Amino acid sequence: MSFRVNQDRLGFELDRFARIGASSEGGVARLAFSPEEREALGQMESLLKAEGLATRRDAIGNLFGRREGAAPGLPALRVGSHLDTVPDGGRFDGALGVIAGLEVVRVLREQGIQTRHPIEVVAFVGEEAARFGMGCLGSRATVGTLNLPRLLAARDLRGISGAEALRQAGLAPEALPSAAQKPREIAAFLELHIEQGRVLEAAQKAIGIVTDVANYTRLHVEVIGRADHSGTTPMPLRRDALAAASEMVLAVEETVTALGQAPSVGTVGVLRVDPGAVNVIPGRAAFEVDVRDIDFDRKARIAQRIQERIAAIAERRGVEVQVAIPSDGHPVPLSATVVETIQKTCEDLDIPAQKMVSGAGHDAMHIAPFAPAGMIFVPSREGRSHSRLEWTDLADLVPGVEVLLETLLQLDKKTTDH
Amino acid sequence: MSFRVNQDRLGFELDRFARIGASSEGGVARLAFSPEEREALGQMESLLKAEGLATRRDAIGNLFGRREGAAPGLPALRVGSHLDTVPDGGRFDGALGVIAGLEVVRVLREQGIQTRHPIEVVAFVGEEAARFGMGCLGSRATVGTLNLPRLLAARDLRGISGAEALRQAGLAPEALPSAAQKPREIAAFLELHIEQGRVLEAAQKAIGIVTDVANYTRLHVEVIGRADHSGTTPMPLRRDALAAASEMVLAVEETVTALGQAPSVGTVGVLRVDPGAVNVIPGRAAFEVDVRDIDFDRKARIAQRIQERIAAIAERRGVEVQVAIPSDGHPVPLSATVVETIQKTCEDLDIPAQKMVSGAGHDAMHIAPFAPAGMIFVPSREGRSHSRLEWTDLADLVPGVEVLLETLLQLDKKTTDH
Repeated sequence: MSFRVNQDRLGFELDRFARIGASSEGGVARLAFSPEEREALGQMESLLKAEGLATRRDAIGNLFGRREGAAPGLPALRVGSHLDTVPDGGRFDGALGVIAGLEVVRVLREQGIQTRHPIEVVAFVGEEAARFGMGCLGSRATVGTLNLPRLLAARDLRGISGAEALRQAGLAPEALPSAAQKPREIAAFLELHIEQGRVLEAAQKAIGIVTDVANYTRLHVEVIGRADHSGTTPMPLRRDALAAASEMVLAVEETVTALGQAPSVGTVGVLRVDPGAVNVIPGRAAFEVDVRDIDFDRKARIAQRIQERIAAIAERRGVEVQVAIPSDGHPVPLSATVVETIQKTCEDLDIPAQKMVSGAGHDAMHIAPFAPAGMIFVPSREGRSHSRLEWTDLADLVPGVEVLLETLLQLDKKTTDH
Repeated sequence: MSFRVNQDRLGFELDRFARIGASSEGGVARLAFSPEEREALGQMESLLKAEGLATRRDAIGNLFGRREGAAPGLPALRVGSHLDTVPDGGRFDGALGVIAGLEVVRVLREQGIQTRHPIEVVAFVGEEAARFGMGCLGSRATVGTLNLPRLLAARDLRGISGAEALRQAGLAPEALPSAAQKPREIAAFLELHIEQGRVLEAAQKAIGIVTDVANYTRLHVEVIGRADHSGTTPMPLRRDALAAASEMVLAVEETVTALGQAPSVGTVGVLRVDPGAVNVIPGRAAFEVDVRDIDFDRKARIAQRIQERIAAIAERRGVEVQVAIPSDGHPVPLSATVVETIQKTCEDLDIPAQKMVSGAGHDAMHIAPFAPAGMIFVPSREGRSHSRLEWTDLADLVPGVEVLLETLLQLDKKTTDH
């Protein structure tokens, strides 16, 4: 069968959004609640309106575009992802899923297809944890699982609090609880995303059907040593917080390698030194550990061992250490019904697909406990993501959008309520 | 003999300046060219004027207060230090030397002492390297050894360039070369400073007579790995710039401990991670190494071995590394004449003193190749410095100011020209 998705139009829209927050070096930066994220949301809202959809924003700034269905009173079939990015990120992570939703409603209009359920294109805000150390802010808000006090008090690298950032984005922090929706408003949620790994590339499959989303444990580690003059403090008398933190960073790497298996990963992506002067021995160092696994117990063992190693290093070096565990989540299974529907769709369309686990977290994992949710992956070149080098050829995106469209239509036929 | 220095007045002035840029936690922050440094310079200028001194600022913002001498045409005897601090620094490092200069001219007025040479109290700007990675900016400018293009292009943690910072401080970058003076304008320079180490405390001496100032080698190291998604990139495929940098930080510590002797020190006080997000493997890490020694050859061997270790770590981990060496200085001897005069003064005043080497860099080391320069140290409690915990009891400061005053008067008698 020939595809209904318009490849040129899809490419045009990807180019359009890649320019919002683009750096001269080719990366894209649209941090949570930034002017660049707002600009992307505004452009998407205009495009959805131009397709005749009724758009609205909720209290945290999530964008919804609604195309009514034929049968009155049915819950919506939702499709989308997010428009924010990490600093110096790529053009696909998030934006692809929203732009694919736009393409789906464009095809429905062109082909005169009337669905039974309403179709809603959604752009969740603040999916990336890069700015405030908390991710999936928009999707969590819609299902009432956002830790609002923590977000309001969190601070970005420039010292701006979550509360200030929300206000700068024109949002009222006190109104955020009103973003929570009811399960009966949603028939299902579908998210198309790049894989951000190498599984599909290695297996030469066009589509990944996500069965589970791995979850992470995050450790916030604060090392307190002693700030002294770098020129006058003999080596044996030092309590250097950065030297201690450096050992701990290596202990994360060693522990994951020793205790983990292929999908186990551990990363220190953030490390800050205080006071941060060339002639002062660091008095403090703070860093964030991110451990992920699809096996909750193994993840717990790795996180436990990392904490033991950190404590032993601190003890030996005579520095204090404080460890907080802001996140420690279970892997999330996605909807079996949706997984089956995607699989059947791939078979019908004769597109090579395989079931897989997502190592990265996604908005869909927060919707999943609340409403049937599924994810469709397309390959990422060399597995690159959260980087300006993130890439998937346009021709490899089209099957993903086609599967998204067809799955949505299949779900529209079979879903009534849940 | 009884001291002429007024202990209460000295304490009052130290308290006054400790409040400028004070944090609620007790530290002092007056970074180079900051509003806080300007405020301190302004207050000192008012105090010097109130003593009847003629004040002026040069093109980089150094403050001079001049008390004319009896003999016409003689070069000035200069006394002073700096008023800027590291972030979260102490109240003595720098400020003591300038406040002591103020106390000296107050005693001269009270006692009706007319010197032969003019006496100049000086507050050099930007002695601490904390903001732009370059120190002793003001004193270097007066002797024409400031690397102006490097300062103008340097950036602080907020991305503000040296040129912008100068302009914000009301200075014209293009006018900076005019700050350079002629050797014949200066008869000698004396700097009173806290030791910032534990030598005097351990030896139970009131005064340290500095014979040499250790110099530093600075390495700027840039590690270039590969930014990838922290959840989807298997451990063996990573090129984590922070993990590599962590090994290098530990290699600095190990190398100095293995090759150095007591005064050899090596520190990484600054480390920055890019992009710095909890869910992104660091693609870049940059850090600064500070190696100090009084033995130039040993310092060179340590710096060389550190570079070899850095290269080997980079090679093994498959990351790129770039090392720049912005500073690689020889230890600086201070004036033998001034050292002898300080020693004779301590004997006359019956104050226990010893000759010693300064591990820290100081403005005096930049003046020394240009005009006779000397330094007087007073003890630091537990050797703490570059920290809010920096402390010396007021009663232990008074002998230092007294020796400064008496040495200045002795130099006034013996010095004609050089």
